[in-house]
Amino acid sequence: MDSSTSLVDLGVNARNAARVLALASSASKDDGLRYAADVIEERAPEILDANQEDLSVAEGQGVTATAIDRLRLSEARVASMASGLREVAALGDPVGEVIDGWVRPNGLRIRRVRVPLGVIGIIYENRPNVTSDAAALCVKSGNAVMLRGSSSAIRSNQRIASALREGMSRSGLPADAVSLVEMTTRESAVEFMRMRGVIDCLIPRGGHDLVASVIENATVPYVIDGDGNCHVYVDAAADLDIALEIIVNSKMQRPSVCNAAESLLVHARVAEEFLPVARSALAGVELVGDARSRAILGDIGQASDDDFAKEFLDLKLSVAVVDDLDSAIEHVNRFGTGHSEAIVTTDIRAARRFTQEVDAACVLVNASTRFVDGGEFGLGAEIGISTQKLHARGPMGLRELTCAKFVVEGDGQVRK
Amino acid sequence: MDSSTSLVDLGVNARNAARVLALASSASKDDGLRYAADVIEERAPEILDANQEDLSVAEGQGVTATAIDRLRLSEARVASMASGLREVAALGDPVGEVIDGWVRPNGLRIRRVRVPLGVIGIIYENRPNVTSDAAALCVKSGNAVMLRGSSSAIRSNQRIASALREGMSRSGLPADAVSLVEMTTRESAVEFMRMRGVIDCLIPRGGHDLVASVIENATVPYVIDGDGNCHVYVDAAADLDIALEIIVNSKMQRPSVCNAAESLLVHARVAEEFLPVARSALAGVELVGDARSRAILGDIGQASDDDFAKEFLDLKLSVAVVDDLDSAIEHVNRFGTGHSEAIVTTDIRAARRFTQEVDAACVLVNASTRFVDGGEFGLGAEIGISTQKLHARGPMGLRELTCAKFVVEGDGQVRK
Repeated sequence: MDSSTSLVDLGVNARNAARVLALASSASKDDGLRYAADVIEERAPEILDANQEDLSVAEGQGVTATAIDRLRLSEARVASMASGLREVAALGDPVGEVIDGWVRPNGLRIRRVRVPLGVIGIIYENRPNVTSDAAALCVKSGNAVMLRGSSSAIRSNQRIASALREGMSRSGLPADAVSLVEMTTRESAVEFMRMRGVIDCLIPRGGHDLVASVIENATVPYVIDGDGNCHVYVDAAADLDIALEIIVNSKMQRPSVCNAAESLLVHARVAEEFLPVARSALAGVELVGDARSRAILGDIGQASDDDFAKEFLDLKLSVAVVDDLDSAIEHVNRFGTGHSEAIVTTDIRAARRFTQEVDAACVLVNASTRFVDGGEFGLGAEIGISTQKLHARGPMGLRELTCAKFVVEGDGQVRK
Repeated sequence: MDSSTSLVDLGVNARNAARVLALASSASKDDGLRYAADVIEERAPEILDANQEDLSVAEGQGVTATAIDRLRLSEARVASMASGLREVAALGDPVGEVIDGWVRPNGLRIRRVRVPLGVIGIIYENRPNVTSDAAALCVKSGNAVMLRGSSSAIRSNQRIASALREGMSRSGLPADAVSLVEMTTRESAVEFMRMRGVIDCLIPRGGHDLVASVIENATVPYVIDGDGNCHVYVDAAADLDIALEIIVNSKMQRPSVCNAAESLLVHARVAEEFLPVARSALAGVELVGDARSRAILGDIGQASDDDFAKEFLDLKLSVAVVDDLDSAIEHVNRFGTGHSEAIVTTDIRAARRFTQEVDAACVLVNASTRFVDGGEFGLGAEIGISTQKLHARGPMGLRELTCAKFVVEGDGQVRK
């Protein structure tokens, strides 16, 4: 792979590799991933050197501390890329799974079989470990992957992609099963999003601007991994001890991720009892509230509609008191992003209405929003959490990187 | 519904209706569809009058005979719209189906439940019966539908949509479950394709230009119902009597539809025996062939690459002789549109390789391509045949108009 290889050539190579990958045995794909893990470990020093160069350039350009943290690799992070590859190798192969099947009155045997999508494009920012994590899931599910990382991580990504390609080759698979797009201009990003006929599915992993650019520019099919403005609603019939544990866990266990809670809604009947206790338990979290929660808590800031709509990704939480379940559902459907929404209640009717009427990928009853994750759901791994409705919704595992093919077998049937 | 209603207002009304539809019982949706069938029958004379006006205008503008035929309603076609509504009412409701479910080691109960998409947009050309057929499937699956037909059919569509809305109202459902977009300019089509936040899924039903415009302009999620350049490959090990029946049925039973065969590939070992017989049986079909098929058949026209890539939708067929199964698969993957591809063979290895290596929504062994259809597959009905890979691939029934929601139930679990 040469940085002068054009995007068109990369696409041709990826498509050719995809044809081989689609027919590859699970054993050869798993071997490829394990070899790639070995190569990453062997080459850890040079990966870390390259990362150091990326960091120096980034620091010279005065980027934010968060961006630097995302960009930084350590020996532990490199080791975890290698173990991630081995974990994915150990998962079951979704390819070939018979989803369903039946026989028609005329004797035709119909079945739907799971097959790879073909070429998956990943466009992402900063984090070089995405290079390895995403490639593992794509290869395991029989797809070739084109990785388009950011310019800030280019040296790290080159070393990691090169190690992954070496792993593929050692297993007899085409190196082009994994390719890195080294053109990192804004124009080349748009060109990447328009590689119709080459990319079967594009998955953006990044912030607002990236997602907006995909929606505006992409002509290839895509799955959006969007924001999580997640709510915890404490119902009148909630067990308040459980409610407290859930809001603390949902907000504080890892505030920077999409399945962290950003907003707390409390039924008016329990607000006076619950809110002061919640404030103490949420020590360190900045609260902003509506008029009614401020009347109870006194000294918290006022929440605007913008606050209620915002994914803080930080130790900040918006709070509102609602009159009833209807108001809670309405608030969630108005301000939520369709990610993960939780109710805490002992009332079976409230639970049923909330889970049915809230429009989100995941609705939870008496559980922390932090469980919305491919690993926690038992999917083995995840490539992201879809906030769209078509194709995949919620945590996306290996199956979501495949599609179905109808196989119809007859004995000479023709249509009357 | 008033023709001055703006697209934005229509969208708001459709979203409000979608919330009601999503929670509506199967009984009330089915009643709505049956009432709509009654109203269509009651108002058949005025629907036919309106259609006559559309036809007069179209004839005055000198449109093609095919377009006129598609636009034309008859008493029989109106009766068939009504019976179509009743047939959809009689189908099972996909909403609420539990797709799968499991329990995690920590006791969390996870299940995926089928829910409506929300608002479905249909953009289509000429045929006024699409108004009724598409609306039936959307309502049955709990979705509101925004119908954007062509200006040529506007009067017919207005009467049909009005009857459908009356049926919804009689069942106590919002009339806005079905709305007709009466703005039919090219600009309003693009505006319709960009109603993000309103339309959850757009399905274009029309030709190349419409599909190309959706791919270029749409910011809403969509499913493409694309071309069918379908092949029948007669293998060296084919039963030639069966092969003959299948190519005749695939090509001639209804040549104007997407699942009709457009290309015949014959293994060199059986070409001299099969092709002359096939030509006789395909009397009335214009054949164009490659050099080797012309050497056998003598007087047929030469097929260019454009011919091999073309969906004729007519009594025309491209023919090629191939050296082996590899060449057949390569030809299909090069020229096919990923719709429906058939092999005729008695060789289990050839059947396996063809079904596995051909990249298409549907692959058939010893059966006519004409079976690729929601009704023939037993899906009850179809809204189209997807040639894309994400969300739906192949015939789309009611389930393809839904998505999944994760419902997670716990007892106070928090993440460690």
